[in-house]
Formats: sequence, structure tokens, C-alpha cells
Amino acid sequence: MKKSKPSFLGKKYLYTLILLFVFTITFIPSHSFAQDPTGAKTGTLADIDTSAVKTLDTISKAKDSSTAKLAEHISQLASTVHSIGDADGHNKIAINIMWTLIAGFLVMFMQAGFAMVETGFTQKKNVAHTMLMNFLIYAIGMLGFWIVGFAIMFGGSLNPATLGGAPGVSSHEVIIHLFGKDFGIAGTAAYFLNSKVYDVGVFTLFLFQMVFMDTTATIPTGSMAERWTLKSFIVYGFFISMFVYPLYGNWVWGGGWLSALGTNFGLGHGHVDFAGSSVVHMVGGVAALAGAIVIGPRYGKYGKDGSVKTIPGHNIPMAIIGTFILAFGWFGFNPGSTLAGGDLRISIVAVNTMLASAAGAIAALFYMYIKGGKADPGMVANGMLAGLVAITAPCAFVTATSAVIIGAISGILVILVYNFVDTKLKIDDPVGAFAVHGANGAWGVLALGLFADGSYGDGWNGISGTVKGLFYGDYKQFIAQCIGTITCFVFVFVVMYVFFKLLNKVIPLRTKEADEIAGLDIPETGVLGYVD
Amino acid sequence: MKKSKPSFLGKKYLYTLILLFVFTITFIPSHSFAQDPTGAKTGTLADIDTSAVKTLDTISKAKDSSTAKLAEHISQLASTVHSIGDADGHNKIAINIMWTLIAGFLVMFMQAGFAMVETGFTQKKNVAHTMLMNFLIYAIGMLGFWIVGFAIMFGGSLNPATLGGAPGVSSHEVIIHLFGKDFGIAGTAAYFLNSKVYDVGVFTLFLFQMVFMDTTATIPTGSMAERWTLKSFIVYGFFISMFVYPLYGNWVWGGGWLSALGTNFGLGHGHVDFAGSSVVHMVGGVAALAGAIVIGPRYGKYGKDGSVKTIPGHNIPMAIIGTFILAFGWFGFNPGSTLAGGDLRISIVAVNTMLASAAGAIAALFYMYIKGGKADPGMVANGMLAGLVAITAPCAFVTATSAVIIGAISGILVILVYNFVDTKLKIDDPVGAFAVHGANGAWGVLALGLFADGSYGDGWNGISGTVKGLFYGDYKQFIAQCIGTITCFVFVFVVMYVFFKLLNKVIPLRTKEADEIAGLDIPETGVLGYVD
Amino acid sequence: MKKSKPSFLGKKYLYTLILLFVFTITFIPSHSFAQDPTGAKTGTLADIDTSAVKTLDTISKAKDSSTAKLAEHISQLASTVHSIGDADGHNKIAINIMWTLIAGFLVMFMQAGFAMVETGFTQKKNVAHTMLMNFLIYAIGMLGFWIVGFAIMFGGSLNPATLGGAPGVSSHEVIIHLFGKDFGIAGTAAYFLNSKVYDVGVFTLFLFQMVFMDTTATIPTGSMAERWTLKSFIVYGFFISMFVYPLYGNWVWGGGWLSALGTNFGLGHGHVDFAGSSVVHMVGGVAALAGAIVIGPRYGKYGKDGSVKTIPGHNIPMAIIGTFILAFGWFGFNPGSTLAGGDLRISIVAVNTMLASAAGAIAALFYMYIKGGKADPGMVANGMLAGLVAITAPCAFVTATSAVIIGAISGILVILVYNFVDTKLKIDDPVGAFAVHGANGAWGVLALGLFADGSYGDGWNGISGTVKGLFYGDYKQFIAQCIGTITCFVFVFVVMYVFFKLLNKVIPLRTKEADEIAGLDIPETGVLGYVD
Repeated sequence: MKKSKPSFLGKKYLYTLILLFVFTITFIPSHSFAQDPTGAKTGTLADIDTSAVKTLDTISKAKDSSTAKLAEHISQLASTVHSIGDADGHNKIAINIMWTLIAGFLVMFMQAGFAMVETGFTQKKNVAHTMLMNFLIYAIGMLGFWIVGFAIMFGGSLNPATLGGAPGVSSHEVIIHLFGKDFGIAGTAAYFLNSKVYDVGVFTLFLFQMVFMDTTATIPTGSMAERWTLKSFIVYGFFISMFVYPLYGNWVWGGGWLSALGTNFGLGHGHVDFAGSSVVHMVGGVAALAGAIVIGPRYGKYGKDGSVKTIPGHNIPMAIIGTFILAFGWFGFNPGSTLAGGDLRISIVAVNTMLASAAGAIAALFYMYIKGGKADPGMVANGMLAGLVAITAPCAFVTATSAVIIGAISGILVILVYNFVDTKLKIDDPVGAFAVHGANGAWGVLALGLFADGSYGDGWNGISGTVKGLFYGDYKQFIAQCIGTITCFVFVFVVMYVFFKLLNKVIPLRTKEADEIAGLDIPETGVLGYVD
Repeated sequence: MKKSKPSFLGKKYLYTLILLFVFTITFIPSHSFAQDPTGAKTGTLADIDTSAVKTLDTISKAKDSSTAKLAEHISQLASTVHSIGDADGHNKIAINIMWTLIAGFLVMFMQAGFAMVETGFTQKKNVAHTMLMNFLIYAIGMLGFWIVGFAIMFGGSLNPATLGGAPGVSSHEVIIHLFGKDFGIAGTAAYFLNSKVYDVGVFTLFLFQMVFMDTTATIPTGSMAERWTLKSFIVYGFFISMFVYPLYGNWVWGGGWLSALGTNFGLGHGHVDFAGSSVVHMVGGVAALAGAIVIGPRYGKYGKDGSVKTIPGHNIPMAIIGTFILAFGWFGFNPGSTLAGGDLRISIVAVNTMLASAAGAIAALFYMYIKGGKADPGMVANGMLAGLVAITAPCAFVTATSAVIIGAISGILVILVYNFVDTKLKIDDPVGAFAVHGANGAWGVLALGLFADGSYGDGWNGISGTVKGLFYGDYKQFIAQCIGTITCFVFVFVVMYVFFKLLNKVIPLRTKEADEIAGLDIPETGVLGYVD
Repeated sequence: MKKSKPSFLGKKYLYTLILLFVFTITFIPSHSFAQDPTGAKTGTLADIDTSAVKTLDTISKAKDSSTAKLAEHISQLASTVHSIGDADGHNKIAINIMWTLIAGFLVMFMQAGFAMVETGFTQKKNVAHTMLMNFLIYAIGMLGFWIVGFAIMFGGSLNPATLGGAPGVSSHEVIIHLFGKDFGIAGTAAYFLNSKVYDVGVFTLFLFQMVFMDTTATIPTGSMAERWTLKSFIVYGFFISMFVYPLYGNWVWGGGWLSALGTNFGLGHGHVDFAGSSVVHMVGGVAALAGAIVIGPRYGKYGKDGSVKTIPGHNIPMAIIGTFILAFGWFGFNPGSTLAGGDLRISIVAVNTMLASAAGAIAALFYMYIKGGKADPGMVANGMLAGLVAITAPCAFVTATSAVIIGAISGILVILVYNFVDTKLKIDDPVGAFAVHGANGAWGVLALGLFADGSYGDGWNGISGTVKGLFYGDYKQFIAQCIGTITCFVFVFVVMYVFFKLLNKVIPLRTKEADEIAGLDIPETGVLGYVD
């Protein structure tokens, strides 16, 4: 190698480069500091209101102290303060909108994480198919949510105060009256993000809530992987994003009846779910369970003799990196759910989120070691995801130690539920979607009803006072959590089970046996996922 | 497995762990709330100006109402308000700089997305080579832009008001006079980010614009993949980052002549391109086309009998994850182009961006189904990218519905153009770089000229009033867009075609036939991309 | 394919879709603009304090100019200004907390980058094992840091002013007295993030510092890869996160003795390390070196005849994408270390960070070309990482040109050190962890002592005046940097060497020879990383 003289770059080029640097550093004038290299002087009152600078300078140097002059100055001061206060308020809302958008971007990126986890934990012969489902759901869900989902979910409460309150926007919620109480059922505004809601606050809310919906919608692609026809999947994608997710979401977050269990029936603050253990994860996990039952197990998964075959994932690195991406995106998921960067509780939320994820992973690890097993990367990753799912509801309401306990329990729960579903119920859920999102989603909302420490949540769902769980004295909050959990399971399971059964009659859910055995990439996508 | 007693971690360890938790939660004192767990009390006037707190308290409790005292208090109030206003202005600029930087970070991450898309869609035997080009361009482009590119592009307008305006910094633009008008051609300040521009605002602008340039520079690595010598590629990298991209960029964003079509010739707001459908994507896509023509098709791509061979990508999961990363980074690309977190239009921009991406993917999917084909993941991914490219120019100026329409058209356009270039023109563009970035870049700027709804852009390019497209009554804006588009194609194609032709004489663009057939990893990088 | 009429989606579906769009855009009422599509009117004084709006309006329109009335108005103005100032201060801290959290999220994501770089650069037979170590360290380190690490490192300085200053929180540092001076050794507060530190500012600090620690802890997984038992690794993870990293970290960042070299001995500003070239990278790199020595080289790496075998990495794309993720995360690492988005120096920091990374990569590339070699992607990637490590300490204190020079030197240094360790010292460090993090960590802190230009750092470590390096006139600063560097090497090397030696007696560090040869995935994790 050394013999052939380098033809392209020789030593003289290096010397030229070095000389260039020396020249640069030597002859370019040293700092004049005419500019602002520290940034301390950048951004002043002049960036808000140049006339205010002049007014204030004039007033502070005024010599005339006649009452007429003083009155004039006071009046000028008042308008100037008003203008500064307006800029201050604009900064406040800008902080909140920036925070919510950036958090939403992180949540959107979780789609890549789901795609990697699911594809890594399934078989090589189906990678293009599994990837494509995870890819398409982002686009399908988004359009479904844009068309009608967002209108159903948030049509009744489009104007969160943290995002500016959008004064010109009218919200509308369908309400039914039962037992002398109002039960909000569904919103009916903001279809297609039409011109009546053409507002920066509403659009911010849409972006953040859209990516949440997509998380739900992508979960069943894991439990039904390796045997689901793309065409029935596409119909499913529109259905869940347009109706199922938005309805339950409306009941909890959109002003619907579960959020009113406090005001209507005195049950704590109603069903409280900070960032979606139930609204997002349990809905997705229960839909995943219904789908896995209807579509049936993969060929070869369960023997006629009752044997259970483990079908190993084809790519552990892909699944682990996917898990990291999910854990990363969760920092948008949970802390972003304040819809306000100015609500500094975000730091508590973020720390609780990561502590629970670590506790979930380590609890799963130690549990496996204690059982005499090895450190299965799949189970450790699922332990972390379980911790994240479980802390999603209570993250804003509990102490760091409680977050660790909640996470640790979820890390063991996910293994127990996975094994129960897989070997006892004999429901084939390739990536453990129900164990991770369904079971731990339920555990998360219940954990809130146990561990909420009363340090946060004053005024939540219109109830004054902070949110307290059973361990901190409010057993009624725990009851509200139970009602929310049961409602979620029953509503989602029934609707999705019926939906999948009906859909199966129109467009078969299941790919052909020969295709499934040979691999779905060519039959469903026309290309091979991996080409040598 | 169960026989061997676990030696490392037994049940007693678990019990210890549990006891530790119980101990922790029990004996550590419960919250004193002496601190601020909600964050509501964190951050007060004292964090800005401690003396102001004292002054204001004194004044509000003052008993003496002599005019002398009142005058003194008014004067003190005025200075205090000034100080608070300064802090307010600093917050405003901090919000803008944070936003621009974070958006820039997201755009930088798109380099990983490009690397994955291009490598996934090409062959296994060239992965190290394709990856390396995508990696090196980040570094090469950055240094080229630092040396002279930024100076040419923004030397004439270094001080955006949203980033503080950098009062000590002098901008300079080379202007030529024709037909009694001024035509800005190129900036000439800020070479090497030297000490004259050592300013926080200028550096913020540099970071954001640098990552944009790198997006352009990386696009031709897709169209010329699998046959390009690294050494000629390195020269290309410096050339496009130092001269070609910055020049066109100057004309549109740096105060150059295309941005002055409005002030000079009454054509709407001049050529308007919010985030770079033309400046970034079309420049890259047209350069990619010129390069693909000069370097010629891969061996075996086109048969002597006129047959066209499809060379499948080797790794669909890699390409799909890369697409997700690009879609994620685009949330920096478009919303960041306000250069201001305080410009709350960012939420409209972000929502339009994602809606167009979804519409592009779904339109491509449905188009393939209608044509009787299957859901090719490559085309669906390109549909999403096409939607993103097309919405990049108009994202800030159109409604959500228009964004969906623009995206849907781009999803079909990308397939038509790809097939036309591939089978009619017989130009071998392995990843469809021209179809995605070139054709849809053009469509994006033209779409702005059609769909801009007049709700935003007051004062853009020095023209008062908002930006309106043909459908909303301003046909002159559409003419300006056409001029910008044609200029982009002609300028970039001619310069890059000539450049590649000349470069080819000095350093051959094309790798040796034998190397290309065997794979470029060993000949070009010395290592194999994948080792078993 | 074309023969079979598409059963699912036909042309009529497309027409329906098009009609739907036309309907949408035509019949939905055009903008009323009752809302705020530009966002310019969103966020006003009313979002802060509705009564202030009324007060100010009343005052500015007042007719009564009696001194009593004027005095009343002045008093009201003073309280209103106070309230606006409080909101302003809250915005300021919110900006800082948001910035620090988002930066921390980016740093957390670096874990995925490390996992990919290390796994990509090692062998296919160990991928599940290498991935799992990188995954587990995130969780293990986090719990260790939560239990005691954070308390040791920051227990003595829990209240950074930029994060609100947490007035109710008491810090405590263990101090020893020597030569009539105080030497801070370790903090002793905030174990388990207990209720005494239940504060939004403290939790923000914890999150940011936790992810920094995890970076350190993950570095030795690279040097000890492909032969390390998981069980000893787990013990290591707790040890370094609980004790070693926090102690050195306390000395530099937590108010400990190295930070007091300025106040105690007049050595500049004491040991200055902006974002952790020494605290994070050198600690990790030196621990990696100690571990690599104790664990010994991989079987087959060094022949008995003195030959050195190159064991190529199995997946270059994985390693390159990992490098991009690291470079992306570094934008959190360095700019986030202001702990303040309102410290606008963040833009200088970010630009310096990326310029050094580019210079490192390009210097490595040109060095290899000059030596007559090829563009080894591994070395180019390590060149970029070396540039990032080296600029981490000086990023806030140097000019852009100095950043390029520092980066360029590091890009060559990493190759020289890697070769020296690999072929002269015959220490087997599979991914060059010491060369990248150890050697360049040292170079980074020394470079600060040379290139700091005196434009920033007024008051750093309690010393008034800015930070200046040797080239700018302060040789004592360089001495302080040398002391910090030597301390880091000696302390970490000795402690970790002894620790690994002792640990090896309790739980063998090294996997069995047969397992190492066959691959560690099954023996250590129970599953194969890749399944065909």
C-alpha cells in the first residue's frame, strides 16, 4: 500500500491546509467584540417595542414634577407596561406551544421505534410487511384523525388555556342526560381542520394529539404481525383513528363523561390519566388482544399436542435500538402532556418517566436471573417498555420513589402476563403487545389511584384540590380509576372484536397459509425485505 | 436450567431489594413541600432583577404623596419597567434562538435518514461506500460552508431581527445594476465565521443554514450511488457547498435578485420559498440529475435491447426507518424556518408538513393499488418524501386541506417522474433523487404560487400585504414562482453538468467496471460493509 | 399482475376521493379569520394576569390628577409591574428548564448511538450481548445515580441559579481542610431524590446529569466488548455510576476541590471543563483502558509471534448511523451544559461542536489518504467522535477557527493513539474507546487551557473575569487544566484497575473461552442476535 504514491492528496496538500489555518488565525483581525459573543446583550426591550425605550427613558429623566406632567407620565407608563405585559404573555404562550410541538415531534419519532421493535422481534421473512404496516399506520391514522378523529375527540374542548385559549374558536360536545347528570359523549367540531379552527393553538393541539393516536393505532400491528393482510389492515387503520380511539379519548381528555366522574359523582377528580396509560396504551393493547384472538395464532405456533413453540425474533439489535427510540420519544409523550413548557412540573414528569423505565428493565432482569434464566434481551426491553407504559398515567402525580416501585412492578407484570397469554390463553401475540400496553396500561391508571401524592393537579377536571391516591387518603380517586379502566377494556374489546369479525367477512384479515409459511414480503409488498 | 441454583442473584437479593424500597418509602421524611414540586413558584421577578423587587415593594407601600416623592417613584418605576422589559426582550430572542437551534439539530439528524434511505435502497455489496459518502458529506459540506459558502449566501443579510439583529455586524451584498434595478448576486461577509461576526445571532443563523446546505449536498449521493469514486465525490462536496448552493440560496433567501422580483418588478412578493423546496431540494435534485447523466447508468441497468432492469434495494427496514428519520427531521426543517419560536405560525407549518407527508404516502399507495400493483414500500416511502419536499415551500402559506392536496399530487407525481426518468429517459437514478427532490421541489414552489391563502407573510421580501397564490387572486405571485423555478433548473443544471464533465477529466467520477461489479466497499473504503 | 382486476380499490374509489377533496375545499366556509392563524395575537397580558389588563387600562385613561389619585395609581402600577415581572421571571426559568430537559433528552438518545457504534464495530456472533450491555447500562446507571451517585456528585450544589435556585433545598458538601484551604470531596444530599429535594429545579439537574453519567458508564462496554460476563458487568455498572463518576464529577462540577484551584491557589478559574471532556469522556475512557488491561485481549487478537490481527466490525452501516446519532445527541451534550436556554452562548457552543466534529472526520480522512491508505469508515467515524470529545470541554470558550483546529488535531490523535494502544501496548480495545474518549478527553481539557479566548466565563468557579488560555495570556489556567487531567487519569485508572481486579476474584470478568469463540449471544443472553 505504501509503495503507490498517493496521487490525489499528498503532503503538500496537508501543508497548504496547515498554512491556511495559520494564516486564518493570524491575520484575521482578533475580536473587536463589537458584536455580542456572549449573548448577554442580545435581546432587549427594543426587540419588543422600540417606542417604549424612548418613553421610559424620557420619563425616568423627567425634571417637571407638575401633577399634570406626572399624570401624563403615569398614563404613558401604564400603556408601556401593558405593551411589555403583552409581549410577556406572548412569550409565555410561545414557550408552551414550542414545548408542545417539540414534544409532539419526539412522539412522532416513536413510530420508528415501534417499527423497529416489532420488526426485530418477528421473523426475517416478513420484514418488509411488518415495516410497511408500521409505516402506513402513521399516514393512515393521520388522515383519519384529520378527517373526523380529532373532531370527535377534542371538538368539545378545542381551546386549552396553555396554548392561548383561541378565543374565536367554538367547541361543541354532544351530551346525553342520564340520572340528572350530563354525560359528554363526543365532540363535533374541527373536521378537516377547517377554516373555523384555523388557529395556532388548535393546530398545536392537533399535532400533539395526532401523534398520540398513531401510537395507539400502531400497537395491534405487533400482536397481529406476520399474518395480517395489508388491505384489511388499511381499513382497520382508518377505523381506529377515526372512531375508537377518539371516543374513549373524548371521555377522558375531551371533556367527556369519565372526566366528569368527579364533578358528577364526587369520585376524586374523575378518571385521571396524565399522558395516556389508558387512553393511548390500553386502548391499543386491548385492540391488539381482540385482533390477535380474531386473526388466530401463526401457523406452527401451537401444536395439536398443546405444545407452545417460541418463534424467536430475527434481529435483536433492531429491537433494542427501537426500544431506545421509544424511550427517547417518551420524553415527549409524558412531559409534553402538560401542553405547557411553563408548567415546570415537566421536570418531575421526565424524571419519573425515566426512573420507571429503568426499574422496569432491571426488575425484569433480576426476575429472570432469580428464576434461573438468562438475561433475555427481549424481556429486558419489554420490561423497560412496561415501565414506560405504566408510568404514563401517574408520571405527574407521584414521587420518584413511587415511580421506581411502579416501574419495578410493571417489569415483572409484563413477563407474567406475556407468559399467561402465550402459554395459558394460547393467544399468539408475537411482540407481547397486550402484556406491554394492555396490562401495564391498566396497571398505570390504577397505580395513579394508589400512589398520587397530592402535590399536583389542583383543579384537574374541574375539581379543586390536588390529586391524591388511596395510599394518600382518597379512596374515591381509586374508584374513578377502576371505572375508567373497566370502561376502557369493555368498550375497546367489544367494539374491536366485533369490528374485526365483521371486517374479516368483507376483506379477510388473514394472509394465505402458503404465503405465511413462505413469507409475506413478496405476496403483500411485491419486494423482498432483505436482498443478498 | 432450573437445576443449577442461581449463584449470582438469589431470592434473598430480591427480598433485600424489596426491603430497601419499603424502608425508603417509609422512613424517608414525607414531603415537607418546603421546595417547589409543582414549579408554580419557581421563577419570579427576583430571577431577573432583585433590586426591582425591593423598589416595587417600596413604591406600592409608600405613604408619602408629595409631588416630589411621586415624581421620584415614577422615575424609579420607569427604570424598573425598562429593566423588566429588557429581560422580556431577552426572553423573546432566547425563545427564537432556542427554537432555531433545536430545529437545526433535527435537520442535522436528517443526514442519518438520507444515509439509511440511500443505503437501504441500493445493493448490499456497496453499503460501506454509500454510507461513507453520506457520512462524509456532512463534514465536507460543513467545512465548505464555513470557509466561504455562508459568506456568499448570507453575507448580505447576516442580522435577522428574530435572532436579535446583531447590531455590530456589517452585511455586504454584491449588487449589479441592470435595467435601472439592483440585482443582488452574492454576499461577501463572514468567511470562516471570523471575529467580525463573532455573535450569537450570526452563529445561530450559520448552524441552521449549514444543515440545510448539507441536505442539498447529500441528495446527489443517491442518484450517483454505487459507481461514484470517493475522491471525485470529495471535490464535488466542497464545490456545491462553497458555491452552487450558496449562490442560488443568496438569490432567494440572502437578499438576492429573485427575492427582489416583487420590489423590482411588482411580481407578488418575489420568488417565495418558505423552507426550501427550490433552494434546498430542487438544487439538490437537479444536481443529482446532472450527475446521473454524466456518470452514466450502473452496469447492467439498461440492456442493449432497450430493456430496463430493476435493481432492488437490499434492506427495506433500513430505508423505511431512514424515511421516518427524514420525516422527523422535517419538523425542524419547515417549522424552524421561521427562525422564531415566537412566530406561532410554527404550529400551522408543522401540521401542514405532516399532513402533506401522509397524503403523499397514501396517494402513492392508492395509485399503485389502482394500477393493479402491490404496496411497494419503496414507492410509499418516496411518496411520503415527495409530500414533504413539495410542502416545504408552501407550508407556511396554505390551509391544511391545501396541504393534503399538494401532498397527494406529489405522491403520484413522484411515481410518474421516477418511471419517466428510469424507463423513458433511461437515466439511472438508483433512489429516485430527481423524482423526489427535483420534480417535487419544483411542484412545491409552484404550489405556493397556486395555493397561498393570504393569511400569512405580511411584509415578506419587503412587500406589504400577505402572500396570495393564483387561486386566491394574485397571478403575479405565480409568475414569480415560475421564474424562480426556471432559474433554479437552468442555473443548477448547467453549472453542475459542466462541473461534473470537467471534474471527470481531472479525477474520474466513475469507479472501475470490475470494482462496480464486485462491490465498491473494498476498493473504495478498504473494508466490507457487512462481515459474517 | 395487470390481468387480475384490482378487487379492493378501483378507479371509482379514486374518483370518490377526488370528489371529497373538491367538496371539502369548495363548501367548507372560507376563512373567517375570527381565530388567529398567524399567532400574532395569541398570547397577551391577559394570559398572565387578567386584572392587570383592567388596572392598566383604567390608569392610562384616568382623568383625575389629584396627588392622592396619582399616588394610588403609582402604587397600583408598582404591584402590576411586579406581577408582570414575576411572569417574566417565570418565563426565564421555564426557558432554562425546557432547554436543559430537551438537551438531556438528546443526550439520553446517545445511548442508542453508543449501542450501534459498538455493536457495528464488533463481531456478528456477539451482537445480542453487546447490545444488551449498552441497553442495561442505561437502566443500571440510572438507578445507581438515583440511589447515591447524584447525592455524591451534586449534593453540595443542588441549586443552580439558572434553574430557579430552589430556595428550600439545602446542599451539603464534605470538606477536608489541608494547607489552610477547604477541599470539597463529595456531596451528601438528595439520595433517592427524596422529599427534601422534591423540586422542579433539582429534578431538572438530576435528569441532565444522569444522562451524562450514563455516557461515561457505557464507554467501557466498548473496550471490554466480546468477552465480558454480564453479571460482572452489572456490578461494574452500579459501581461506576454510584461512586467513581460522581466523585470526580463532584470535584469539577459539584463544588469540589478541582473547581477551587482558582479560589484556593490562584490557578485561573480552577479546572474548567464546560461539558465533560474530562468529567464524562476521560473518566469513561480511562475506565475503559483499565478494564481492557484487566480483562485481556480477545482470543486470537495477538499472536504468540507478536502479530496483531485486525478483527473487523460486522456492520458498517450500523456504526455510521450510530455515529450520526452521537453527533446529534452531542447538540444536547454541549449546548445543554449552560443549563440555560437564556444563555445565548448556546449558539457559539453548538457551532463550535459541529465544526470540531467535521474537522476531526476530515483530518482523519486526509491523514489516511496521505498515508496512502483508503477512507476507512471506522477511522473517519472515530475522527468525528474524537473531534466531539475534544471540543466538549472548550466548546464555550473558543472561536470557530480554534474549534476547527482542535477538532483537526483530535482526528489525527485518535488514529495515532488507537494504533499505539493496539499495536505497541497490545491492549485490545475493540472500538478504540480509550483513543476516542480517553486521549481526546485529555486533549480537550488541555485545549481549553490553550485556546480559551477570554470572551466568556466571567465569574466561572467564583473567579471574576473571563476564562483565558495560554495562547491568550493566562498560563495558570493551563496549569489548572493539567492538574485536572492528571488527577482524572490517576484517580480513575487506579480505582478502576483495583476494582476490576477485585471484582474478577468474586465474579469472573471474562466469559469462557469456548463461549467467546462460538459467540456470546446464547451463553450470556439465551437468544441469538440474528436469526435467519
